[in-house]
Amino acid sequence: MKKLKVAIAGLGRIGKIHLKNLCRNFPELEVVAVMDVAAESKNVAAEYNVPILVSDFDDLLAVLDLDVVVICSPTDTHADYTIKAAKAGKDIFCEKPLDLSLDRVQEVLDVVKESGVKLMLGFNRRFDPEFKKIRQLVLSDAIGDPQIIKITSRDPGPPPVSYIKVSGGMFLDMTIHDFDMARYISGKMVKEVFAKGAVMVDPEIGNAGDIDTAIITLTFDDGSMAVIDNCRKAVYGYDQRLEVFGNKGMAQADNNFPTNHKLYTESGMSGDLPLHFFLERYDASYVQEMKEFIDALVSGSEMPVDGNDGLLSIAIGLAAKKSVVEGRLVKLDEILA
Amino acid sequence: MKKLKVAIAGLGRIGKIHLKNLCRNFPELEVVAVMDVAAESKNVAAEYNVPILVSDFDDLLAVLDLDVVVICSPTDTHADYTIKAAKAGKDIFCEKPLDLSLDRVQEVLDVVKESGVKLMLGFNRRFDPEFKKIRQLVLSDAIGDPQIIKITSRDPGPPPVSYIKVSGGMFLDMTIHDFDMARYISGKMVKEVFAKGAVMVDPEIGNAGDIDTAIITLTFDDGSMAVIDNCRKAVYGYDQRLEVFGNKGMAQADNNFPTNHKLYTESGMSGDLPLHFFLERYDASYVQEMKEFIDALVSGSEMPVDGNDGLLSIAIGLAAKKSVVEGRLVKLDEILA
Amino acid sequence: MKKLKVAIAGLGRIGKIHLKNLCRNFPELEVVAVMDVAAESKNVAAEYNVPILVSDFDDLLAVLDLDVVVICSPTDTHADYTIKAAKAGKDIFCEKPLDLSLDRVQEVLDVVKESGVKLMLGFNRRFDPEFKKIRQLVLSDAIGDPQIIKITSRDPGPPPVSYIKVSGGMFLDMTIHDFDMARYISGKMVKEVFAKGAVMVDPEIGNAGDIDTAIITLTFDDGSMAVIDNCRKAVYGYDQRLEVFGNKGMAQADNNFPTNHKLYTESGMSGDLPLHFFLERYDASYVQEMKEFIDALVSGSEMPVDGNDGLLSIAIGLAAKKSVVEGRLVKLDEILA
Amino acid sequence: MKKLKVAIAGLGRIGKIHLKNLCRNFPELEVVAVMDVAAESKNVAAEYNVPILVSDFDDLLAVLDLDVVVICSPTDTHADYTIKAAKAGKDIFCEKPLDLSLDRVQEVLDVVKESGVKLMLGFNRRFDPEFKKIRQLVLSDAIGDPQIIKITSRDPGPPPVSYIKVSGGMFLDMTIHDFDMARYISGKMVKEVFAKGAVMVDPEIGNAGDIDTAIITLTFDDGSMAVIDNCRKAVYGYDQRLEVFGNKGMAQADNNFPTNHKLYTESGMSGDLPLHFFLERYDASYVQEMKEFIDALVSGSEMPVDGNDGLLSIAIGLAAKKSVVEGRLVKLDEILA
Repeated sequence: MKKLKVAIAGLGRIGKIHLKNLCRNFPELEVVAVMDVAAESKNVAAEYNVPILVSDFDDLLAVLDLDVVVICSPTDTHADYTIKAAKAGKDIFCEKPLDLSLDRVQEVLDVVKESGVKLMLGFNRRFDPEFKKIRQLVLSDAIGDPQIIKITSRDPGPPPVSYIKVSGGMFLDMTIHDFDMARYISGKMVKEVFAKGAVMVDPEIGNAGDIDTAIITLTFDDGSMAVIDNCRKAVYGYDQRLEVFGNKGMAQADNNFPTNHKLYTESGMSGDLPLHFFLERYDASYVQEMKEFIDALVSGSEMPVDGNDGLLSIAIGLAAKKSVVEGRLVKLDEILA
Repeated sequence: MKKLKVAIAGLGRIGKIHLKNLCRNFPELEVVAVMDVAAESKNVAAEYNVPILVSDFDDLLAVLDLDVVVICSPTDTHADYTIKAAKAGKDIFCEKPLDLSLDRVQEVLDVVKESGVKLMLGFNRRFDPEFKKIRQLVLSDAIGDPQIIKITSRDPGPPPVSYIKVSGGMFLDMTIHDFDMARYISGKMVKEVFAKGAVMVDPEIGNAGDIDTAIITLTFDDGSMAVIDNCRKAVYGYDQRLEVFGNKGMAQADNNFPTNHKLYTESGMSGDLPLHFFLERYDASYVQEMKEFIDALVSGSEMPVDGNDGLLSIAIGLAAKKSVVEGRLVKLDEILA
Repeated sequence: MKKLKVAIAGLGRIGKIHLKNLCRNFPELEVVAVMDVAAESKNVAAEYNVPILVSDFDDLLAVLDLDVVVICSPTDTHADYTIKAAKAGKDIFCEKPLDLSLDRVQEVLDVVKESGVKLMLGFNRRFDPEFKKIRQLVLSDAIGDPQIIKITSRDPGPPPVSYIKVSGGMFLDMTIHDFDMARYISGKMVKEVFAKGAVMVDPEIGNAGDIDTAIITLTFDDGSMAVIDNCRKAVYGYDQRLEVFGNKGMAQADNNFPTNHKLYTESGMSGDLPLHFFLERYDASYVQEMKEFIDALVSGSEMPVDGNDGLLSIAIGLAAKKSVVEGRLVKLDEILA
Repeated sequence: MKKLKVAIAGLGRIGKIHLKNLCRNFPELEVVAVMDVAAESKNVAAEYNVPILVSDFDDLLAVLDLDVVVICSPTDTHADYTIKAAKAGKDIFCEKPLDLSLDRVQEVLDVVKESGVKLMLGFNRRFDPEFKKIRQLVLSDAIGDPQIIKITSRDPGPPPVSYIKVSGGMFLDMTIHDFDMARYISGKMVKEVFAKGAVMVDPEIGNAGDIDTAIITLTFDDGSMAVIDNCRKAVYGYDQRLEVFGNKGMAQADNNFPTNHKLYTESGMSGDLPLHFFLERYDASYVQEMKEFIDALVSGSEMPVDGNDGLLSIAIGLAAKKSVVEGRLVKLDEILA
């Protein structure tokens, strides 16, 4: 069988993960080219025997017989690159978000649709074994109809304020994963958003016009609900938990830990803190995400996360922002209209 | 030392618990009289060697040398009985709520203040070992300043609709405990309330003008937050959990279980469901509640739960109701003004 | 119905527990007399309204219309008192062990049998909710046939060496509970014993001719096995766990804890240590033990722990001692013959 | 830097794991050749771009500039291949055991010593994150001096009886890992062994002269102890746990699970069974094992598991066999002498 030819745009933290995972786990494909401007990219490409390293996205697209582009470059390039790749007829995996503007996202999706290529968005948490298991329990009706979904999502520490300033704000940068999770787990449409935000971690974040702590209540179209609590800084590490309560039961996914050891001494019982951050916690999810992307490409089945998933998460994020600013419940229709 | 003479008004479910606990655990007091109209009360009084059984509250107050009245009668008698007992100079323990009307509650508190008697409200969950431990961790600064408090509070099944109709609604009947818990754990003043409610358990509850499922976000005066999720029916039993997230750490209290056994078989791992309902789960809290009430009476120190705690919980409940009805954030000042 | 008249011999730690439990939980009986020589016994008797306090066991037996004697006096009086009570026609609850000599135990059992009274031995752990649950799982065949039983039993600290000298040694004083547990859980006959002991806690214990740490392997008559590990000192508290492995599954009972809270801070996750010692851990078991004793008396059914249970536990203990001394596997027949 | 050239002998289950791990995780080495007679080996070699595939060990050793041989062939070839590789001056990683005969093992070790090559034995469990953590806690004195080590080690199902017949018996085939673990965790010398075995899983295993269930007590030279319980069949899956009790505390490592989810429904709480078998549970350990082997080769430091570790585990296994057969405590000196 002919191997899929894949190119990766951007070799930052997440780009390197995809490079490693694609090279190590998928004999059915070949990473034929990477694009990055950093000096060290040469070494990275060499380590994985990637023959072509370019610094321009057009050059990447021009690589002979290229099938797939994986876009891991900075957020503000996502829309542009996706449009270019779509027009060039390449199937696309793009890290979230497609763009911070809803109009621009819609524009990208229109081009993708027109060009007929496949597009998957990088909501990797859907592929985390813990959350996947919870989703399966929902699908198998073990929990019944979900009535309350609870998502805890706290980072070990905030990014630099310089990053926060261009991030689109906490809801579009961080909570966007949780918005997608609420949709993924429930399989329902979000109708209303109420968010309460605060600056409790660092006043500089507030000065930059953002918040660092929030509780967001989502209402689905059937009246059932989800609640998300976020904080940019949990001193004990990355806190990623999920709970679904339904009319037949309740399921929980706890954090993941380096080990499950327990130590009992005169001064008390102690154990590990959660895995440090997303690279550790979601390690397996990145491999699984690519597996399901490749499988869907090869089999021609539906993308496990599509462009509309990206659009809706951004819309919910914009509604949450509006809710905090205006101190009121915001209907998603106000945003999507 | 002279023994305290105690009378109990009402020998329903909770009245019997207090009777048993007072008789078995406090040699420093004597239950000298009980009031109830049910036929079986005679047997109950006999079982605990209570010499006087009356059917009228005035007769109860008239018992010679009575020091303390414990009010466990139906909610709509609480205000009346408390006023009478206060005017008669008796110290009072009253089950929550004092009344469903804020004005009436204020009137009761005014009489209590004027008469100089002591009044404690029956927010028993403050005396639960799990939650008490969390409060101690907050007080000892182990968690730092509380930023997010999460309370899960779900009943194993709804009360009869006939009860719901006169209960004041879920927020005043059930969530009121959680409102008090949020205040107790944080030690902070609630400023704003946003609540989202739904009827997911039984349409009859909706027909009765109430809800059975809700998520409530409280904002404290310093901007920190609490979120409560409620349901009138959790098929797996009574779900009572608490989590506090602060700038120095996070603490959790899980449910209590009949045993902690784990069984592993070919078909999976299994274990116990939570203790069935409040009588089982909060068994120890009722004893501890009385202990602290008696201790405070004897030592003359402040009541661990006072009239203002009762008033504020009702106010928050009324704000939550208003929030659901009007679909907006409600400031507590709107209720208290 | 006529109330059972109960007398208690010995108001030490365990005697006081039985006194409290009998007075508070059993309206169907009356503690009419207690025997003890300590000065403070007067206050104890008064606290529970026990009308008769004597200092001599014969005087206790002479109390009018006495039905039941509960023997909680020092071990070296158990045999003598049990024989006297049996001959006086009183039903008997006796704390373990009946005696440290197997011949003497047999003599007691013969007298009891002849006199036709009921005798229950105080192996309270059989009535602990955790272990009872495991036993029920075995009985319901959820685990299948038990193949390996594992008992962890460690004390928070050793008793005084003066006590150890007259205790009969760790196996007869401490492990005896575990020997009974192995028999109770399996429902099988012990055939062989191998024990390995060490002095690791305090050399003075070794000087007194005893050990403080041990691993004991029991073989049942069908070849299945149990293993017990003991230590006189676990710095983290009282460690009481049980595991049963069978051909259909495995069940575990963990320790009990004051609360189940978990605290996560920058320096790690922490939680409670186990309940301190037997008074706390086995609190509920003492009530349940008396309940089943009284129920069996009233209904005339078999005693839940009988004299033979006491005898066999002592025999296993003696076999374990022999095994340590002689460094070899000891058959129970060698002891029982 | 020059890349280490590695050859692998044997591409069975474990050989394939090492091949995959070596190719994917270690850019500092190159797998230049593999040896196997199975037809499918050609595909395996191709998948990992291994240029040379041979069917004879001598041919493998003859590969140009070869540095390291990884021996994963059947047990009865280990001694022979190790001797040949040592004489050829290759550093060696060999799966356990070196041989079932102590004399033969000693002969191998003598040759290795003489030839000056490095030899590491494949006791992969030492590199499991859970057990490694426990070892670190022992080394850091968090537990104090280990007094009781408890190892639970049960397989999900027995191997075919044909395999059992040539395996050397359960102690040398399965428990050998636990013997090494007891030595690794304690850092102490085993002095005595007492083992009790039974046939409870399959009578055919007994007919083959082996046992399938056992409890083994090890005594270390300082009198402290370890206890291992084994069964060839745990219906709930692979059960691999460890506990260390010392004078300063106690540490436990539990099983690993596919997810940590908990599901609560009307019929109870349920969760995952342990990871199925060694390939899943010890996945990470195989990578870490190779990492420490390569690191030690490159840095010239001591092998993390050396030939003596292999020899002692076999000696303990032989002592355990003798103990079961003769029904008595066996001193290791009887075996080693």
